[in-house]
Amino acid sequence: MAHITLSNDLPGIIGPMTQYPQTAQALNQLAQVLLQTDEELTKAERELIAAHVSQLNTCTFCSNSHLNAALAHLEQAPRFIDVTRESARDGLSIRPVVEALLEVAGKVQQGGLQVSEADIRAAKQLGATDRMIHDTVLIAAAFCMFNRYVDGLATWRPEEVGFYAHTGKMLADEGYLNSIKEAAPQESALA
Amino acid sequence: MAHITLSNDLPGIIGPMTQYPQTAQALNQLAQVLLQTDEELTKAERELIAAHVSQLNTCTFCSNSHLNAALAHLEQAPRFIDVTRESARDGLSIRPVVEALLEVAGKVQQGGLQVSEADIRAAKQLGATDRMIHDTVLIAAAFCMFNRYVDGLATWRPEEVGFYAHTGKMLADEGYLNSIKEAAPQESALA
Repeated sequence: MAHITLSNDLPGIIGPMTQYPQTAQALNQLAQVLLQTDEELTKAERELIAAHVSQLNTCTFCSNSHLNAALAHLEQAPRFIDVTRESARDGLSIRPVVEALLEVAGKVQQGGLQVSEADIRAAKQLGATDRMIHDTVLIAAAFCMFNRYVDGLATWRPEEVGFYAHTGKMLADEGYLNSIKEAAPQESALA
Repeated sequence: MAHITLSNDLPGIIGPMTQYPQTAQALNQLAQVLLQTDEELTKAERELIAAHVSQLNTCTFCSNSHLNAALAHLEQAPRFIDVTRESARDGLSIRPVVEALLEVAGKVQQGGLQVSEADIRAAKQLGATDRMIHDTVLIAAAFCMFNRYVDGLATWRPEEVGFYAHTGKMLADEGYLNSIKEAAPQESALA
């Protein structure tokens, strides 16, 4: 049971976002700007960074939602992972520069001061630009927020691949600006 | 030296926010909604939660900026703290319910799954409402993001109380929506 009474029975971040639309608007705007662009990093790569950090934070809802958004962008089959044991990156073909950026993201997950000059140098040697590093750090930081919002309120979550397949496809195709309304199960017939 | 080349020499989060205005807009919108309201928690209490979490994340820039925003709201003298040794809450008169919410915020800083039913029960017994708990969890989560953005990019920071006194007063009085332009040192004569 969630730590607060919600006006709805929607899962994960969708519950509190639906109830608190003013903060939801800013949160979705941030996700849209960070994840729904192919500038320098593809949308799939951005979603993978989000899924990877969420897995490190053992956030089942976020990791599976964003892994499946990445898989939808890549036109690959949906997948459900156990975040306590499986990595979001397993089985994906990943550019070396993005592998290095996933390492940077992992350091950000531990804490901002954990990102070393060596981590950044390794990424730059593989072609990472300032924009790639900036966006990687901010995506990783943002998911340290989203994950804590979801689990700090003890929201419930589905454990079936079907939910995340649907959610990931919708996020990939429609983006985040209308994700609250659209992600609601009762709206799924419209998706 | 910051991990990326910035187009300016502005300190802390102001540097990357000035360079990347699209993400800055969403980040400032979130800070505005969470920190610039007195609904159920005062602005000073909200800034204190932000400063406390930032201190736990040993983020000098954020902790001192938001501690001094809280002090400005309270019309108390500015202060600079060493985040490795001092608590942002020391010396402040804090409502018992806010003390309990600071404990919840500290758990969120460790990770969302660390917030226990006992933590929430303790806060509710002292009068915490659902809105207070929601906003506390999201403020704490958001500063786990802001702190990582600031330190994950290795931005530089002033160590003098004067800078934070000025920044804190400006954030308290003017809010976050124009904070990038307004926080720039070259603009300080206008503040």
